[in-house]
Amino acid sequence: MNFRDTLSLELNVFADFDPRLPPSYREAPYCFLANIDPVLQRSVLEQFRGPRMVGCDTMNHWIENSRRELESLLPAVDFLVINDEEARLLSGERNIVRAARRILEKGARSVLVKRGEYGVLRFSPDSVFAVPAFPLEEVFDPTGAGDTFAGGFMGALARWGHEDEQAVRRAIVYGTVLASFAVEDFGLGRLRTLTREELDRRYRQFVSLTDVPP
Amino acid sequence: MNFRDTLSLELNVFADFDPRLPPSYREAPYCFLANIDPVLQRSVLEQFRGPRMVGCDTMNHWIENSRRELESLLPAVDFLVINDEEARLLSGERNIVRAARRILEKGARSVLVKRGEYGVLRFSPDSVFAVPAFPLEEVFDPTGAGDTFAGGFMGALARWGHEDEQAVRRAIVYGTVLASFAVEDFGLGRLRTLTREELDRRYRQFVSLTDVPP
Repeated sequence: MNFRDTLSLELNVFADFDPRLPPSYREAPYCFLANIDPVLQRSVLEQFRGPRMVGCDTMNHWIENSRRELESLLPAVDFLVINDEEARLLSGERNIVRAARRILEKGARSVLVKRGEYGVLRFSPDSVFAVPAFPLEEVFDPTGAGDTFAGGFMGALARWGHEDEQAVRRAIVYGTVLASFAVEDFGLGRLRTLTREELDRRYRQFVSLTDVPP
Repeated sequence: MNFRDTLSLELNVFADFDPRLPPSYREAPYCFLANIDPVLQRSVLEQFRGPRMVGCDTMNHWIENSRRELESLLPAVDFLVINDEEARLLSGERNIVRAARRILEKGARSVLVKRGEYGVLRFSPDSVFAVPAFPLEEVFDPTGAGDTFAGGFMGALARWGHEDEQAVRRAIVYGTVLASFAVEDFGLGRLRTLTREELDRRYRQFVSLTDVPP
C-alpha cells in the first residue's frame, strides 16, 4: 500500500489551468501548494501577498520532468510534504535520513516524509520527529490519505497561528489522526461524519499509543 | 531490508541438539526461547523451575512445519517477539492489528511485532504501543538486529525486576536503541565498544524523537 506506480498521467482540466486567486485569498497567511506542475505552484505562490507559512506537495512525475522548476521553489517552502519514494528520487539518496538532509540543503525549511502505514518522519535542520501511523484493524481506501494528512497538518497550524516545535508536532499528529479516519471509508465518506470530539479522542489515544517514559 | 526468504535451513549442530541446563540456570527468573524448533523451546522451558517471565521468538519455517507444537507453547509465553511477516503467517490475517489480536487469542500474553526500519508494535489485551526505529544515516549490517532487540528488551526487564506498562515500554525502547547500535557495524563489532553512557544518551534522544505533546 506504500508504493505508487504512475502508469499514466491525464491532466485533463489542469492541462491549461492558470489559476487566478480571488483578491481575498491573496492575503491568506497559510498557503498549501498541492501536487501539480511546479510552474503552476510558483504562479499561485506569487499571487500571495506574503504568506506566513508555505506547504508544498509534489510527485515522481514532476521530480523527473520538472526538476529545475521544482528545486527553484524549495527555498520558499516551509514544509515539503512528500512520500519516502519521492524523497529518494528528489535527493538521489537511498537512506531516508540522508535523503531528507539533502532536501534541506536544497532550501526547504523542513521535510515531512510520509511512509503510509508506517507513519511520518519530520526533518528540520535541528530536529527529527518520528510518529507511527495509527494502527487500524481495517483500511478501506487509502486514496487521499496523504492529502488528508497535509490538510489536517496545515489546518491545525492555521487554527493555532504559530509554528513552534510543539505546535508542529501536534499538527503532524492531527494530520496523522485525520488521515486514519479518512481511510476508514471510501472517498470522503468518513470525513463527512467525523466530529471534533472523535478527532480529539483519537489524538489522546495517539499520545498514549506513542508515550515513551523518560 | 524488512523481508527474509528462507532458501534453505541447515540446522547443523542443532539437528540433534538436546540442551540440558546447568542446575544454576534453572532458577533463572527470565527465560528467552530464541528461534529454534518449538519442541526444543518447550524442553528448555520445562527445565526452568518457574520463570517469572518467558520471551519467545520463532520464524516462518516453524510456523509452517511445527505449527501445533508452536501454538501449544503460546499460553506459556509472556512476550512473543516476531516480525510482521511471521505475525501474518501465524495468524492467517493480513492486517497487523488483527494478526496480533488473533495471536493473543491463541494464548500469548503479549506480542511484539518487529517491523525492521519501521520500528516495533506491541500488543497486549488492553494496550498498544508503537515506536519507530531510530533513524540512522548508515546501516552497515542488519543481521542480528532482531536478536539484539530481544536481548536488550529482556535484559532491561531482568535488570529492573518488574514488568509494569512503563517498564515494558522502556524495555522496548532500550531494545530498539540497542539494535540501532548493532546495525552500525558488522557482526557484534559495535556492541563490543558500546558504553552505557552512549546507550542512555540515545535513549534520551529517542524520547525527544518521539515526543507527542498532549
